Amino acid sequence: MEETQENILFQLTDELIEKAKVLISNNDDTSLKVFLNEFHYADIAEILDELSFDEAIYIIKLLDSETTSDVLTELDEDVREKILGNLSAKEIAEEVEELDTDDAADIIAELPEERQEAVISQIEDQEHKAEIQELLTYDDDTAGGLMAKELVKVYGTWTVAGCIRRIRGQAKDVNRVHSIYVVSKDEKLIGRLSLKDLITAKSEEKIADISKSNVDWVNVNDDAEDVAKVMAKYDLEAIPVVDDEQTLLGRITIDDIVDVLKEEAEKDYQLAAGITQDVDSDDSIIELTRARLPWLFLGLLGGIGAFIIMYYFEKKLPEEAIILFLFTPLIAAMAGNVGVQSSAIIVQGLANDDVKGSINSRLIKEMFLATLNGLILSIFLFLFVFVWKQEFNLALAISISLVVVIIVAGLIGTFVPLFLDKRGIDPAIATGPFITTSNDIFGIVIYLMIAKLILGI
Amino acid sequence: MEETQENILFQLTDELIEKAKVLISNNDDTSLKVFLNEFHYADIAEILDELSFDEAIYIIKLLDSETTSDVLTELDEDVREKILGNLSAKEIAEEVEELDTDDAADIIAELPEERQEAVISQIEDQEHKAEIQELLTYDDDTAGGLMAKELVKVYGTWTVAGCIRRIRGQAKDVNRVHSIYVVSKDEKLIGRLSLKDLITAKSEEKIADISKSNVDWVNVNDDAEDVAKVMAKYDLEAIPVVDDEQTLLGRITIDDIVDVLKEEAEKDYQLAAGITQDVDSDDSIIELTRARLPWLFLGLLGGIGAFIIMYYFEKKLPEEAIILFLFTPLIAAMAGNVGVQSSAIIVQGLANDDVKGSINSRLIKEMFLATLNGLILSIFLFLFVFVWKQEFNLALAISISLVVVIIVAGLIGTFVPLFLDKRGIDPAIATGPFITTSNDIFGIVIYLMIAKLILGI
Repeated sequence: MEETQENILFQLTDELIEKAKVLISNNDDTSLKVFLNEFHYADIAEILDELSFDEAIYIIKLLDSETTSDVLTELDEDVREKILGNLSAKEIAEEVEELDTDDAADIIAELPEERQEAVISQIEDQEHKAEIQELLTYDDDTAGGLMAKELVKVYGTWTVAGCIRRIRGQAKDVNRVHSIYVVSKDEKLIGRLSLKDLITAKSEEKIADISKSNVDWVNVNDDAEDVAKVMAKYDLEAIPVVDDEQTLLGRITIDDIVDVLKEEAEKDYQLAAGITQDVDSDDSIIELTRARLPWLFLGLLGGIGAFIIMYYFEKKLPEEAIILFLFTPLIAAMAGNVGVQSSAIIVQGLANDDVKGSINSRLIKEMFLATLNGLILSIFLFLFVFVWKQEFNLALAISISLVVVIIVAGLIGTFVPLFLDKRGIDPAIATGPFITTSNDIFGIVIYLMIAKLILGI
Repeated sequence: MEETQENILFQLTDELIEKAKVLISNNDDTSLKVFLNEFHYADIAEILDELSFDEAIYIIKLLDSETTSDVLTELDEDVREKILGNLSAKEIAEEVEELDTDDAADIIAELPEERQEAVISQIEDQEHKAEIQELLTYDDDTAGGLMAKELVKVYGTWTVAGCIRRIRGQAKDVNRVHSIYVVSKDEKLIGRLSLKDLITAKSEEKIADISKSNVDWVNVNDDAEDVAKVMAKYDLEAIPVVDDEQTLLGRITIDDIVDVLKEEAEKDYQLAAGITQDVDSDDSIIELTRARLPWLFLGLLGGIGAFIIMYYFEKKLPEEAIILFLFTPLIAAMAGNVGVQSSAIIVQGLANDDVKGSINSRLIKEMFLATLNGLILSIFLFLFVFVWKQEFNLALAISISLVVVIIVAGLIGTFVPLFLDKRGIDPAIATGPFITTSNDIFGIVIYLMIAKLILGI
């Protein structure tokens, strides 16, 4: 019982990786197995991600396929792709046999089209094969793309004792039994039952009498993100998936939902930072460029726009007014910052279904908020310019511009994501460079116009 | 079985809220109960969030405390605070009696100090009371702050049949049984058992023989975020919590972890957008100002800094060079955008424990990446300026500056979060306004210096 003495928090260290490398280079299979046996498969995957390709393959071929199949599901996508590319269709099929249908289908879906068929044809368990083939037909972004076929189902007419006897067989294939689903003769979902209810019921009771009929479910075509949201909201650990005729097709468990929620949050965060594709820091320079360059290009166009506007103003302003141009980076930066703040709050509120009420009431609130922030900041700026230059009109022009620019930037930051959302476009795209860039330009135009007006030039 | 015909995806509409308001104003308690009975408690909470305070209280007093206690846990914090402020200590104690210990402790912890004691003293179930009091002693950000006392535990010496008989009693208090924890005579955690194992085992087997000894656990003082990360990583649905002597204290379930992960992602997103406190769009203008103003003020100081630098340069440049200043917003914006992109990727990698290898190798990679992006953008900018103004040197000066500024901005964006992380500071704080502002200033300085050099002025 030594294992119980170890806290689960795992820290991947250089020493661990070094130890694995040494054991591999020594071909010390026995010690390597003992060493890796200490770790959870997710930790082994982390170690593999850091090894060379040959070393990773060495470990995959060394370990039993029950472990390696789980390790495969946890690897970085690019590492997994390389490793699978090095395995035969038969070997991949063996790994896939060990996995739950949802993980199996996910791995097969990543393979090149022509290999998918080869791998599927090598799967020996005909039921598993048919289930995987069914799952491959569903869209990734739907409930069908998330669900697994593994579940425990019983008929309402069974008794508790009969039920326990029969589900012993079914449960062997199911890693974790959350709920037992009750179906009618024609496989329609009609209720659910927890293992706890079953265990605490008397043996002779009928399933129909102890099951709950108000079972929650989602349709196989429901959006994956919506499913994730409701499962998080209702604290559901599993939910059954049905088709339009209410036929029970599969179930989704919360661990898959955790991944969906994490990916969603990461995507929003990256969009806000101006990164358009799902990349991580280990991706290639080309992939990272593809994700980053489009937004930078938008920023560049915005900068050129700002330049053209200033160039036009500069032609018409007297030379003394050059000092105005020295404040444009300040004005542009403040417009960008306020816009990002206000849009981020709206984007997050929309993601949480937290934004109710009309667009107008939101805009009014943001106007008050931006006015308050703008006044405080402008007073400070006014004092700085006035104390330093003793030019009242200049200080006034710049400060008033700052208030107006902050209000307009706040309104744009609030309006754009709300507008996009109403139009059915992901509002996360609105924060970051898009808002920053457009607010830069608006900010500079407003600033120069107000300054011209107040200074009478 | 009509309920099974409803998809779980719930949409809060104005009509629903209106219907609730009408039923309340008519004092139509019967219809109101039937109406609300259709909804999950999390949905009732959403409806309550949109009602007036008096209407919300009306519903809370109408529904049975089994429902309202759950509704209370799902309300917006400010709405809950108001409602609890309107209930007597005895009424709150009654709600709390219905809740699991973790939810109960969370609600009591939100009350003002002096009411906490009053509510606790009104809890009738002495065991529940002692457990809540214990939970209140743990820090919010630790495993102890997340765990519940409800769990099913058995002794290794019991038989399967005896075990099933005895856990029937325990399981009544536990909403969802994930695992059965096996303890020694002195309550030390020594193993675990799934309900599935129990149900599929023979009645006369000993628990010690069918339980798994390699049980994962966390220490009661472990950081809540770390616990959330490992549960997500290992797909755990529940994990036992022990003290330093391995005594079983409680368990954490994945639904609590989903909340922690969501909050963490939201915090990072807000920090990146320059919002320093956890706010949502429904918070008051004062609260929103407190969260937003500090970063805006930082941005303002940065803008003033940029102004001072440009002012200094302007004094020393000939008048023809004024066109240079018209490009400063472009340069500053690009520096900001690149810095935010590169820091966001590092921040996210650090959050996922995905960033390995030395800081140097990261910086070298970012340098290549920024050079590639910078060259592409600079060629475009060069062509624009050259075609438009036919001034080769000016176009060259601006384009070369842009490449250099993008490289430096990328390096700063990469270095700062890595550096903060090494120092034990949350790197999320590095993205957003902090990086944008410092890169604005660096960008303008580099730009003006290079332009001066190339133009020979």
